[in-house]
Amino acid sequence: MLSFSSNFAPTQGGERQMKDSFEALKEEMQSDKVGYYKLPTLSQKFVQLANSIDASSFSQIVVIGIGGSTLGIKAINSILRPITPSAKEMIFFENSDPIAISENLLKVNKEKACFFIISKSGGTIETTSIFKTIINYFSLDLSGADNNRVFAITDNDSTLSVFAKHHKLHEFNIPDNVGGRFSVLSAVGVVPLQMAGYDMSLLLNGAGDFITRFFENRESHLLEKAYSLYENSKTQSINVVFSYADRLEDLTKWYVQLWGESLGKLNGCEERVGLTPIGIIGSVDQHSFLQLIIEGPKDKSVTFIKINDFKNNLTIPDITLEGIEKTNFINNKSFNALINAQCDATMESLIQSGVNSDLITLDFISEENIGAMIVYYELLTSLLGTMFKVNTYNQPGVELGKVILYKNLENS
Amino acid sequence: MLSFSSNFAPTQGGERQMKDSFEALKEEMQSDKVGYYKLPTLSQKFVQLANSIDASSFSQIVVIGIGGSTLGIKAINSILRPITPSAKEMIFFENSDPIAISENLLKVNKEKACFFIISKSGGTIETTSIFKTIINYFSLDLSGADNNRVFAITDNDSTLSVFAKHHKLHEFNIPDNVGGRFSVLSAVGVVPLQMAGYDMSLLLNGAGDFITRFFENRESHLLEKAYSLYENSKTQSINVVFSYADRLEDLTKWYVQLWGESLGKLNGCEERVGLTPIGIIGSVDQHSFLQLIIEGPKDKSVTFIKINDFKNNLTIPDITLEGIEKTNFINNKSFNALINAQCDATMESLIQSGVNSDLITLDFISEENIGAMIVYYELLTSLLGTMFKVNTYNQPGVELGKVILYKNLENS
Repeated sequence: MLSFSSNFAPTQGGERQMKDSFEALKEEMQSDKVGYYKLPTLSQKFVQLANSIDASSFSQIVVIGIGGSTLGIKAINSILRPITPSAKEMIFFENSDPIAISENLLKVNKEKACFFIISKSGGTIETTSIFKTIINYFSLDLSGADNNRVFAITDNDSTLSVFAKHHKLHEFNIPDNVGGRFSVLSAVGVVPLQMAGYDMSLLLNGAGDFITRFFENRESHLLEKAYSLYENSKTQSINVVFSYADRLEDLTKWYVQLWGESLGKLNGCEERVGLTPIGIIGSVDQHSFLQLIIEGPKDKSVTFIKINDFKNNLTIPDITLEGIEKTNFINNKSFNALINAQCDATMESLIQSGVNSDLITLDFISEENIGAMIVYYELLTSLLGTMFKVNTYNQPGVELGKVILYKNLENS
Repeated sequence: MLSFSSNFAPTQGGERQMKDSFEALKEEMQSDKVGYYKLPTLSQKFVQLANSIDASSFSQIVVIGIGGSTLGIKAINSILRPITPSAKEMIFFENSDPIAISENLLKVNKEKACFFIISKSGGTIETTSIFKTIINYFSLDLSGADNNRVFAITDNDSTLSVFAKHHKLHEFNIPDNVGGRFSVLSAVGVVPLQMAGYDMSLLLNGAGDFITRFFENRESHLLEKAYSLYENSKTQSINVVFSYADRLEDLTKWYVQLWGESLGKLNGCEERVGLTPIGIIGSVDQHSFLQLIIEGPKDKSVTFIKINDFKNNLTIPDITLEGIEKTNFINNKSFNALINAQCDATMESLIQSGVNSDLITLDFISEENIGAMIVYYELLTSLLGTMFKVNTYNQPGVELGKVILYKNLENS
């Protein structure tokens, strides 16, 4: 279960906007203009498909993709691994960094590996370049012996789909109405993670339950948070997500893409809008970023994420260190209690300093809770998109760099 | 060698401020008010001290610390490891996260490990709690058999120093005039990294050469960058560092602390000042954050970091993927060429979009170049501190949270 609290000032006159935004999402969902709302139901079939594949000979799941094709998979893999000790190793090839690729190639044992190539459009330059490198390095025989260890996840009629059909590879499709950064609950996330040994059915259930709650009960805290962020966006243009658990770091990277690409836009009124997302980790970043939040420009709101019960009893031993006796008050307390006390104290210090803050509490780490977290952020993003009057689901700003890259490379 | 370029507009009327800031740093250095400027020379003695310790039985260097006590060590360890294949494993205990600590404990083989406990003040709550846990978990006999595998790095008269003297541990001190986040070139970084097998003497040489260049030749590009960031800080309140290499990620985390804690302050005129630092990685974050920079609020400047020669020949094979033939133009090119072409194209697209951008190019990864990068950022931070009229070297804003934490924990 997730619970929510905040010190947001009550919104004045936002009822109309909140109602409109809620209705806009309902319309997106009902008309199938936007597809992610229905993935928790639609994607259960991919759980079955993944289970029907004999993966017993694979102990490594290699994922080749970038951006929306990997960020969500990495987030779920990171968070659920401690509660899924039997999960298979996952190796991600993302960046065009030659050192990173070379190091990763050494980790892969071809005979024990299966390879997922994931690209919505099919022609992503990093993904295809790395895939060619892997074909060459491991001498993959795509139409013969290695045909069963390579899986393509892509749009129905993409160039990668043409390739997959040519070699009769396993192929899984992403619905046309689901964008890359909203695709983690499509085949993109479900198939590789289920094959790795995670229970994606439970995760989809948690996601589906939260979406149902939202459309049936409106989840007013979510609407109010969206409106507060929107209303204050001119002065509080940065939203910091302060997660108190190391393993939430990849989720914050997923959130950074979701917000950055969805909301950072020229809107219908030719205004540059959006909120700059920053993900940090507690308690570590209390020693790094907190000073700036407290005393620097008042341009930030902060969302805390905490895990109530880590299901871990590691306790600070009752030891006195000569000279450092003043830290003895923490002896016999659990690290679970310490990190959450740090979260609470930091949030209280921000509230006392006048910083808009809210808190998301997971009772514990579970597939259902992570599924709910994912759609919580997707719904929040969609709500903000309607308030900012942007097209939440495109990313026109990145095209110029691609045009320049292709021109420069073709002339070099 | 580092080289620098930018599209910053020529600063108008900034000559006086730049001269004053340069003189202020010179005065800080000459008067010994601020100590980091002289570390490249002073810390050579720690290279010798580290070399004089028989580390042959240690294959794991365990570092217990947080914030300024680990961020710089992690940054150097990440970047230099590919060119230092003989470097020993380093394991970092930082966060009070019980799962992270429990997982890390399983990685440590006590008989092969030495332990660095690093805390400037001595009483950091995470560090002492984790240290107690390690003493207990590995049954460390600090006054007996394990006395030679535990090292303390701390201020001369800190509580940790009292503890180290009590047990006659190896102890290395941080100069009083060097703050935690400026301490990577003190014993904090030099001793554990030298013992791990990195050539810290070369790194200090690179740092020292850059400091000498700065004070002798003024490095006008650095002064101009500082002034441009300062002059535009009201409208461009975010500085994004876009590093095109996976292994630069930890350096950006070090930079985030350096800028965040040094500049995010109430200044002498009771103004909230500072620049919000964000570190991202190319090409990956072209698929995540770039859209927001290009089309979102114009509140960002962007610093690109690129490595000219990765010393890696990995090349995209001359393979045609049926259906994806349009990516063939990249065949036979190296990933080194691809990632740098992506950096150049992205920077060009930002400049065309009117975003203030600059570029730092490392000719290749070397100890000297990383030493120079570190002091480049330290000098830039100090220059900005004088312009913002803040005390660059304190962090008063984090105290409130500590007071609340101690009160809550003592009452719990």
